Amino acid sequence: MSSMLTVAVVGATGYTGVELLRLLLGHPHVRVTRVVGQSKAGEPIAKALPSLAGVLDGNIAAFDADDVAAHAKVAFCALPHGASAAVVKALRERGVVVFDLSADFRLKEAKAHAQWYGDHHAPELVAQAVYGLPELHREALRTTDLVAVPGCYATASILALAPLLREKLIEPRGVIVDAKSGVSGAGRTPSAGTHFSETTEGIRAYKIAGAHRHTPEIEQELALVAGTEVTLSLTPHLTPMTRGILAVAYGRALGGATAERATDAARALYAGSPTVVVLEPGSNPDTLWVRGSARAHVAFAADARTGLLIAQCAIDNLGKGASGQAVQCLNVRFGLDERAGLPVAATFP
Amino acid sequence: MSSMLTVAVVGATGYTGVELLRLLLGHPHVRVTRVVGQSKAGEPIAKALPSLAGVLDGNIAAFDADDVAAHAKVAFCALPHGASAAVVKALRERGVVVFDLSADFRLKEAKAHAQWYGDHHAPELVAQAVYGLPELHREALRTTDLVAVPGCYATASILALAPLLREKLIEPRGVIVDAKSGVSGAGRTPSAGTHFSETTEGIRAYKIAGAHRHTPEIEQELALVAGTEVTLSLTPHLTPMTRGILAVAYGRALGGATAERATDAARALYAGSPTVVVLEPGSNPDTLWVRGSARAHVAFAADARTGLLIAQCAIDNLGKGASGQAVQCLNVRFGLDERAGLPVAATFP
Amino acid sequence: MSSMLTVAVVGATGYTGVELLRLLLGHPHVRVTRVVGQSKAGEPIAKALPSLAGVLDGNIAAFDADDVAAHAKVAFCALPHGASAAVVKALRERGVVVFDLSADFRLKEAKAHAQWYGDHHAPELVAQAVYGLPELHREALRTTDLVAVPGCYATASILALAPLLREKLIEPRGVIVDAKSGVSGAGRTPSAGTHFSETTEGIRAYKIAGAHRHTPEIEQELALVAGTEVTLSLTPHLTPMTRGILAVAYGRALGGATAERATDAARALYAGSPTVVVLEPGSNPDTLWVRGSARAHVAFAADARTGLLIAQCAIDNLGKGASGQAVQCLNVRFGLDERAGLPVAATFP
Amino acid sequence: MSSMLTVAVVGATGYTGVELLRLLLGHPHVRVTRVVGQSKAGEPIAKALPSLAGVLDGNIAAFDADDVAAHAKVAFCALPHGASAAVVKALRERGVVVFDLSADFRLKEAKAHAQWYGDHHAPELVAQAVYGLPELHREALRTTDLVAVPGCYATASILALAPLLREKLIEPRGVIVDAKSGVSGAGRTPSAGTHFSETTEGIRAYKIAGAHRHTPEIEQELALVAGTEVTLSLTPHLTPMTRGILAVAYGRALGGATAERATDAARALYAGSPTVVVLEPGSNPDTLWVRGSARAHVAFAADARTGLLIAQCAIDNLGKGASGQAVQCLNVRFGLDERAGLPVAATFP
Repeated sequence: MSSMLTVAVVGATGYTGVELLRLLLGHPHVRVTRVVGQSKAGEPIAKALPSLAGVLDGNIAAFDADDVAAHAKVAFCALPHGASAAVVKALRERGVVVFDLSADFRLKEAKAHAQWYGDHHAPELVAQAVYGLPELHREALRTTDLVAVPGCYATASILALAPLLREKLIEPRGVIVDAKSGVSGAGRTPSAGTHFSETTEGIRAYKIAGAHRHTPEIEQELALVAGTEVTLSLTPHLTPMTRGILAVAYGRALGGATAERATDAARALYAGSPTVVVLEPGSNPDTLWVRGSARAHVAFAADARTGLLIAQCAIDNLGKGASGQAVQCLNVRFGLDERAGLPVAATFP
Repeated sequence: MSSMLTVAVVGATGYTGVELLRLLLGHPHVRVTRVVGQSKAGEPIAKALPSLAGVLDGNIAAFDADDVAAHAKVAFCALPHGASAAVVKALRERGVVVFDLSADFRLKEAKAHAQWYGDHHAPELVAQAVYGLPELHREALRTTDLVAVPGCYATASILALAPLLREKLIEPRGVIVDAKSGVSGAGRTPSAGTHFSETTEGIRAYKIAGAHRHTPEIEQELALVAGTEVTLSLTPHLTPMTRGILAVAYGRALGGATAERATDAARALYAGSPTVVVLEPGSNPDTLWVRGSARAHVAFAADARTGLLIAQCAIDNLGKGASGQAVQCLNVRFGLDERAGLPVAATFP
Repeated sequence: MSSMLTVAVVGATGYTGVELLRLLLGHPHVRVTRVVGQSKAGEPIAKALPSLAGVLDGNIAAFDADDVAAHAKVAFCALPHGASAAVVKALRERGVVVFDLSADFRLKEAKAHAQWYGDHHAPELVAQAVYGLPELHREALRTTDLVAVPGCYATASILALAPLLREKLIEPRGVIVDAKSGVSGAGRTPSAGTHFSETTEGIRAYKIAGAHRHTPEIEQELALVAGTEVTLSLTPHLTPMTRGILAVAYGRALGGATAERATDAARALYAGSPTVVVLEPGSNPDTLWVRGSARAHVAFAADARTGLLIAQCAIDNLGKGASGQAVQCLNVRFGLDERAGLPVAATFP
Repeated sequence: MSSMLTVAVVGATGYTGVELLRLLLGHPHVRVTRVVGQSKAGEPIAKALPSLAGVLDGNIAAFDADDVAAHAKVAFCALPHGASAAVVKALRERGVVVFDLSADFRLKEAKAHAQWYGDHHAPELVAQAVYGLPELHREALRTTDLVAVPGCYATASILALAPLLREKLIEPRGVIVDAKSGVSGAGRTPSAGTHFSETTEGIRAYKIAGAHRHTPEIEQELALVAGTEVTLSLTPHLTPMTRGILAVAYGRALGGATAERATDAARALYAGSPTVVVLEPGSNPDTLWVRGSARAHVAFAADARTGLLIAQCAIDNLGKGASGQAVQCLNVRFGLDERAGLPVAATFP
């Protein structure tokens, strides 16, 4: 057991927190040493998280940076945007390697961060944070001590579009992403918008036309890939299912781009990426095929009559869209098999 | 009772058929005289359609054109594409006023029909058929004896886009409609694609990039409104809910079009239309708000940064998207209150 | 319009309130004159209840007993248990005929009420209240000015068991009701227990083994039917669907009772009841077949090997289990067709 | 890799088959060497089972007993009742250790088997088969070469009731099990009964009052525990969710049995069972808390007023109710950690 990585999960009682615990408790090279959750501190784990009854004894702990640092080499922070930065800072000051699932360290430009999220509580750490999408930043992830794990809309959108923009198969301006998210993406706090009787059997969009704050994060990363500015309109939807995001992206095809060329571009970009599966041209990924896993299914089609290239990506928003991706980043960072601790296959059906 | 319209429902045991029965049995000016369903002919209605147990006695009848004509002034045909034309022809030859819910009489161009649906079994009737969208064809509907009721994707797409194209607020080429449909749109025949365990908790697109055969119907009607050719890429999705379609349409804004101008255009176009509700700019319609009704909720937004105008329309695919609309057409045709027999409000929640 | 009943709905923004509005707005003999909702007073109806956008203009009103009495002959009170009594009292003092959907006037014994609900705010009205189940109290309902409309578990349980106890086909002690309710029964206030992600795709019981406060109401009414004390153990479940209750009741068969005798007993008891459908012996009712309606489907089976008689009843908890039943009571009270304003058939699928 | 168990999955394309693959592919001591599925033989695995795209290359194989025996020491048979026996026989003749998920070898009495399932195709093997519920047969499982893995209703019912019958806390006659199953229990073949639009948003019982063929299997095993005949009435329900069974069992309490005594009895019986979690008295297990896992949550309550003891058990019907349990049996049989290859925790939410 001496070679096991000691790990704390901070913010363990939210959905990304409990999904982290599910994965980390089964990870062959990890030992979970602290389960931290401010609002339920002191409560038995089995009560706060009944799916762990009989799995993990003990109580949820309050956050104490010294205690975490004394018992864990690594911390995953699954806290709300804004609340995370100060916790991350305290842990980094104590030498803990941090995988942060909030948006606090994703945006490189202070101005963009201020516009979408307000004041930053640890701006000095932004420069050292690496955006935790292994498919784009695998090398940088190997040596960083602070990973800003991307969110679900960003992961699905970027994985769908990166191959097209990298190979200049679509116009980089005016890209559209129409994305359908499961309800767990809205978190564990009850609200009118996630009340069962007004959520099941209905679908609706929200924060459309440039209003969703994950837009700048997607544009930032795609601009790096494209080598030029990318503008994008994101239409998120609340879909009556718990897990999954299906992002359907529309770009104006350049130079006679076909579904086959797009597929080839994706296969080239994702050649060394064990969690991305590039489907045959014309396939339509289903979020059910990746549910519970850290896998992404991407596929491409072309509509010659309207001059569009259509890219799709299906992920589990809590898997490749959050906790699974965070564990994948851990694996990259510590030189483990990139799939260690991740479910081999989706839970189907 | 002498002034009641006598009505037959042909194809009564499918979902649009049973929805027609639900509405017509409550219609103050209608008497249902024949319930026809070929595959379940002879079966008690209460067994084939348990929601009608205690409501309608008797058996499902086999189709017999003479019998229908002898007992009904009006027939609704809720049959599969291709199977409907011959039935409609037989009924029209006997003087029955027909509301046909199939695609058989929707496309005005024989070539387009042949391309998408194959041979036509009653081509001579196409010219007299009126496309059953009261919002565009109210006057023509008052005098026709054959109504081609549009389908769900078409209704939602056209209601969202017609105001924009009529007022030249968007480019007529390369319009995108990303539409999310409930599973009842796939009909009542069991299949792998509608099997509960592989449908719930997942979402997927199908027949994208120009492959869906309702595309030409939408383009035909929008071209009439726009006064010029319209090209459109439709991305249908199977959404894990029974009823509802949410169509989100993206057009490139012309001449500084705003959400407000789009909303004004819709209010002007739908001023006399009692089942279309134009929401405030920036609203996001929810299919749950129109479930079980014949209402459509439309709303508009503009994304100035990407130059897009975004139009949304939510309907119940079996309501305004099929049977409710058919009953609305009946009301227009026979000079009744356009809302007669239609649910006053959606069934919420 | 002079002969229309003027009606107020108090507590209009909850689920039973909005269902009342849906039914009353389509009722041929009713005019809704006041829409009252304390917590959303002043808000536009279309915002508080988007399913009524385009249907009802104006704002939600605060409660004012004088104003209600000035404009409405009848009031439906859809308020929480405990909060209703004072409102009912104020309205009754002003001569308004009240249909109360709370539990405040259901229990005839003050002691039982105190035990389950605490202090009563209008004990003097209890004696005049009639339990609003037309199948048992149709005559008394014709002349009362205060109706205590039963809840969903009670309606389903009583309709299943009344025929068996009336004909002494089962032991009156130790009856079991295992009931599965849709989530709308838990109301419109968001909570952890009704949060989509922890409600969909799971089922759980709650308040079992005598802990559910609708138990005494069921026992009270069944004792009247049986002519002897009835004891019953209710096991309610939260089922991942919005509407519907399926009550499965188990009694120890007496005197060789069979499914056929049970079915005959039900047909006799419900002969004049237009909303109760008695299915063939051995049938299994589905809540989907009554969804959106005020109908009840009941069916009976016998398990000779274990000596059990099994009675099932499926209703829509917001229909026959609340608002539909309240409207049915109104019809009985005012000598209208008992089905007036009620949906002819369920919304299927 | 030399110490890895070589394993074939026969009947891999059904839901228990693909769940077996999910678990076995992640099992640290197993190597899957054959994926057999008669109806989809020759099809790429990624097409037949899209959740395995990118995980398992190659095609589904047709069944060939020699080929399986040549490449696998162990076979899991996930075939329909009746179809399994001949396959099991062929594999046993070739020395393969078989875990059979069908009912073919569960019933010890030939007469009972004939009554419920018809002719048996390998009656000579019945005696050597061990019923694969480790909680009751752990020792016998260590040495058998043929395991008859119980089904989902049986597992949930037995785990709930065994402690009560073992300690004589309830009457052994006339026990009631009211069980709610997810739809995946009905298998992968589309049918009207599992069609999404007629399954979601509704609940119904089926094969009640002694008609369900898993009844004798439950009675057989409980009689062994009780030391006397047990009779039981099973009421299965189709619940609108994919996975999970919640069994609620009602027994007449003996000798003042309490929830505490029942809980103690369960803790004693399941002391060495790593996948059974005994909750505190009065708890209500939720199928969501065990989803995707091989865990069972059991809990007990007493209703003194009606003299009932109520036992609940929640499992995942494809986990502890089928494939997870089969893998657990493999672990017992080969002396591995009983939890090897099983998910550490449920997938929540």
